[in-house]
Amino acid sequence: MRNNFRSLALSAALIAPAAAHANGDVAWDILAGLTSEVGPRMPGSEAEARARVWAEARLKALGFSSVVVEPFTIRGYVRGRDEASLVAPIPFRLAVTALGYSGDTPDKGIAADVVYFPTLDALKAAPDGSLAGKIAFIDHAMKRNQDGSGYGPYGQVRRAGPAIASGKGAVGVVIRSIGTDSHRNPHTGGTTFPEGVKPIPAGAVSNPDADLIARIAASGKPIRIALTLTGKTTEGLPSGNVIGDLPGRDPTLPPILLGCHLDSWDLGTGAIDDAAGCAIVTAAALKVQEGGQPLRTIRVLWAGSEELGGFGGKAYAQKHGEPHALAMESDFGAGRVWRVNTNFWTSNKPLADRIATALAPMGIVRGTGPVEGGTDVEPMIEKQKLAVVDLNQDGTYYFDLHHTPDDTLDKVDPADLAQNVAAWTAVLKIVANEAGALTPAP
Amino acid sequence: MRNNFRSLALSAALIAPAAAHANGDVAWDILAGLTSEVGPRMPGSEAEARARVWAEARLKALGFSSVVVEPFTIRGYVRGRDEASLVAPIPFRLAVTALGYSGDTPDKGIAADVVYFPTLDALKAAPDGSLAGKIAFIDHAMKRNQDGSGYGPYGQVRRAGPAIASGKGAVGVVIRSIGTDSHRNPHTGGTTFPEGVKPIPAGAVSNPDADLIARIAASGKPIRIALTLTGKTTEGLPSGNVIGDLPGRDPTLPPILLGCHLDSWDLGTGAIDDAAGCAIVTAAALKVQEGGQPLRTIRVLWAGSEELGGFGGKAYAQKHGEPHALAMESDFGAGRVWRVNTNFWTSNKPLADRIATALAPMGIVRGTGPVEGGTDVEPMIEKQKLAVVDLNQDGTYYFDLHHTPDDTLDKVDPADLAQNVAAWTAVLKIVANEAGALTPAP
Repeated sequence: MRNNFRSLALSAALIAPAAAHANGDVAWDILAGLTSEVGPRMPGSEAEARARVWAEARLKALGFSSVVVEPFTIRGYVRGRDEASLVAPIPFRLAVTALGYSGDTPDKGIAADVVYFPTLDALKAAPDGSLAGKIAFIDHAMKRNQDGSGYGPYGQVRRAGPAIASGKGAVGVVIRSIGTDSHRNPHTGGTTFPEGVKPIPAGAVSNPDADLIARIAASGKPIRIALTLTGKTTEGLPSGNVIGDLPGRDPTLPPILLGCHLDSWDLGTGAIDDAAGCAIVTAAALKVQEGGQPLRTIRVLWAGSEELGGFGGKAYAQKHGEPHALAMESDFGAGRVWRVNTNFWTSNKPLADRIATALAPMGIVRGTGPVEGGTDVEPMIEKQKLAVVDLNQDGTYYFDLHHTPDDTLDKVDPADLAQNVAAWTAVLKIVANEAGALTPAP
Repeated sequence: MRNNFRSLALSAALIAPAAAHANGDVAWDILAGLTSEVGPRMPGSEAEARARVWAEARLKALGFSSVVVEPFTIRGYVRGRDEASLVAPIPFRLAVTALGYSGDTPDKGIAADVVYFPTLDALKAAPDGSLAGKIAFIDHAMKRNQDGSGYGPYGQVRRAGPAIASGKGAVGVVIRSIGTDSHRNPHTGGTTFPEGVKPIPAGAVSNPDADLIARIAASGKPIRIALTLTGKTTEGLPSGNVIGDLPGRDPTLPPILLGCHLDSWDLGTGAIDDAAGCAIVTAAALKVQEGGQPLRTIRVLWAGSEELGGFGGKAYAQKHGEPHALAMESDFGAGRVWRVNTNFWTSNKPLADRIATALAPMGIVRGTGPVEGGTDVEPMIEKQKLAVVDLNQDGTYYFDLHHTPDDTLDKVDPADLAQNVAAWTAVLKIVANEAGALTPAP
C-alpha cells in the first residue's frame, strides 16, 4: 500500500543510468541493458537468442576472456493468447497467465463450472473422476517470509496441482498466483504433467482475482469460468549458456564458478529474475580483478533456459569435465544480502571464519543452515561435490514481483544492488585467492 | 515495494465480511457487495444497470424511503480490445488501456513511428502538421501528494493531450498513465476531443512501460509502436441515479444532500472509486438516524455515469428544483479524513466551530481553503448556491490505484473506512440537526 517504488523508479530510471556510466557501475549497466536493450528473454525464444548475442558482446567488452556460447536445445513453451473471465455469477475479466507447459485450449476457449479447493490437500482428497468436465480452482495463498522458504511448499500448488486436477478428470485448472502481492498481476511459472497424465489448460490469476473467487465461493453461488490459453509446448527450441573467464594468476588451479541465468519469463523484463543476478556476479568478479589479479580463475555462467527446468545448468555440467573449486549463484532478486552459509569441511574452517569476518561489518550474519547453491550451478555441485558459499538475500518482497509483469527495472533499488556487489566482492576476494584445497563437508 | 496490501487483503476479504455482518457494518457490506456481487460498473453498461437494481434494493433494505431510480441517457464509451506493443527497437508487449472516448483503430490495429514528448508543453510547442502519420508519446510523470491537487494539472495530459496531438496530425497517442504507482497497471480515464477535432486512438501505458520508453528515447533509438484500440464512443446509452431519503423530524426543512457515484471504470471493481464513497455516506446517514431521528432529511445520491463526465450530477440538478440545505460528497477513495473545509457565511460561524470541535479529537484539522463539493453534487451546489462541508481524505496513495485494474476490495483498509464513517457521522449529526439557515459565503 505504502510503497515507494514510484520514487525509486524515477531515481533508477532517470538518474542512475547516467550516473552509472560515469561511475563505471557495471552492475547497473548490465541490469539496465538486459532489461531495456533486450527485454524479456523467454527460454528458447528469439529474444533469448538476442540476449546471448548481447551477453557475449558485453562480457568481451568488460574484459572477460574465453567468452563462449554453448548451445543446447530445450522443450519449450511458446505463449499464446491468455484470457479468462468469470461467466457466473457475475461477468468479470480476470487477470490471468498461462503456466509454462500448460495444455492448450481451442482458439475460442473453453467454459466450465468451477470446483473450488481451498488447499492443495483438498484437491488431493477429491474422489477420482469427480472433476470430470470441471475447472478446478486451487486457492491456497502463499505467506510472506524473509528467506523464501515458502516457495517450496506453496509452489507445489503450481508445479503439481494441474497434474493432480487432470488425473481427477478436470478439463482445466486455475490457481491463485504463487505470490505475496495484491496487485492485478498474475504470477507465471512452470508446471509439470508427468508421463501418462494428460496436459490440461492451466492458468494462474492474480491475488485480488483469487480473493474475489474465494468470496463468491464462500457465498455458495455457483461459479463458471471461461478460459482461453492457446500457448503450445514445443520441442527442440534453441537455447544456450554464455560463459566468460577472468583468468587467475595460476591457471592450473580449478576456477571459482559463479552462476546466474540469462533467460527470464516473458511478462516483465526479467529485472530481478535474473538480470540482477548476472549483474551482481559479473560486477563483483570485475571488482576483485580491479583490486589485483586473483590467484584463481573466476568464471561466470550466464545460464540459458533456467525458468523451464534448469536446462542451462544441466547442459553446463554435462559438457564440462574439468575440475572446479567452488560454486556460488545469485538468483533471488536484488534484495540485500543478510546471511552467509557455507558447506566447508573443518579443514577450511579458517577460510569460513575469514569470510564471516569480512561480511560482518555489512551486517551480514553467519548462518548454520545447509547450502543451496542455485539451479544453474547445482548440477555441477552435485557432479563434482563442490564447496559452496550462499549469500542469502532478503526475499521478503521477492514474491511480490517474481514471474509477474511487474518484474521491471524500477523495482531494483540501486543501493541494494550495490550492497550485493560489495558482499560478493568481499567473498570472492577471499576464495579466489585461496591457494589450498576448497573442501566441502561430506 | 514494501506494501502490506496482501495481509490487508486476507483480513479484508476473509475475515471482515463475516465480522461486518455480525457487527452490522453497513459500510463494509455496501463496499463488499458492490465490488463482489456487481463488479465493475461502467457508465451506460449492463453492469451499471445491475448496480442500480442492487442499489435500489439495498437502500430499501437499509430503511431508506422514497428510494427511486431516475434514468437518463449518456454518450458512453464501450471498451473493445486494448493492445499495444513496442515494435522497435525491441519487441515488448505494453500494459495499455484505452482512454474513454478514444478514437478507434481497425481490428488489426495501426503501427507508426513515435515522437516522444517529455511534457505536455513540449507537445503544445510542436509545429502544426509535424506529427502527420506519427504516434505521439506524452511522458510527464505525475507527482505524489496528500491532497490530490496534482490531478488537475497532470490530468491535463490525459484530458487535453490527445486532442492536441490530433490537431498536429498524429494518427494515435499514447500517454504515461496519470498515476503515482509503479505497477504494470495502466490508468484509464476520460479524454476529450472538442468539436472539429478528429478523435484518434488514445491509450495510456503503465508507469514502468513509460519508464522503458523514456529510457529508449534517451538512448536516441527510433521507437515504433503497434496499437489496437477497438472501443467505440456510443450515443444514447442508459444510465441513472439512485436516490434515497432518511426523513427528518421536520419535512418542511430542506434536506442535506450526500453524493457519491455508483458507476466505476471497468478495469478493476471500483472499490475506492467510488463504492467506498457510497458506503461511507450511507453508513454515516444511518448512524445518525440510529442515534435519534434528526431534524432534517438526509438524502443520499448514488449518481450514475460520473466517470465519463459527471452525467448523474448534472441530471440530478436538472431534475430537482426543491430547495436543498447543504451538500457533501465522498469520492476520493477510502483514505483517512485529515481536514475539514466549509464555506459557511459568518452567520454560521458557531456551526462551523462546532463541526471543527467535533472532528478535532479524531485529529482532523480545520482548513482555510475553498470547498470543492464533488462532481456529483457540484451542479446542485452551483444551481442553488449551497453550503458545503468537505471532509478531505488523505490521497497520498489514491493515484496508485485510481482508474486501474488494482481498484479492488483488498485495497481498502477497514479501519480507514470506519474512520471516514465516524467523521461523516459527527458532521452529519450537527448539520442535520441545525434548525437555522445554512448559508454559504457569497
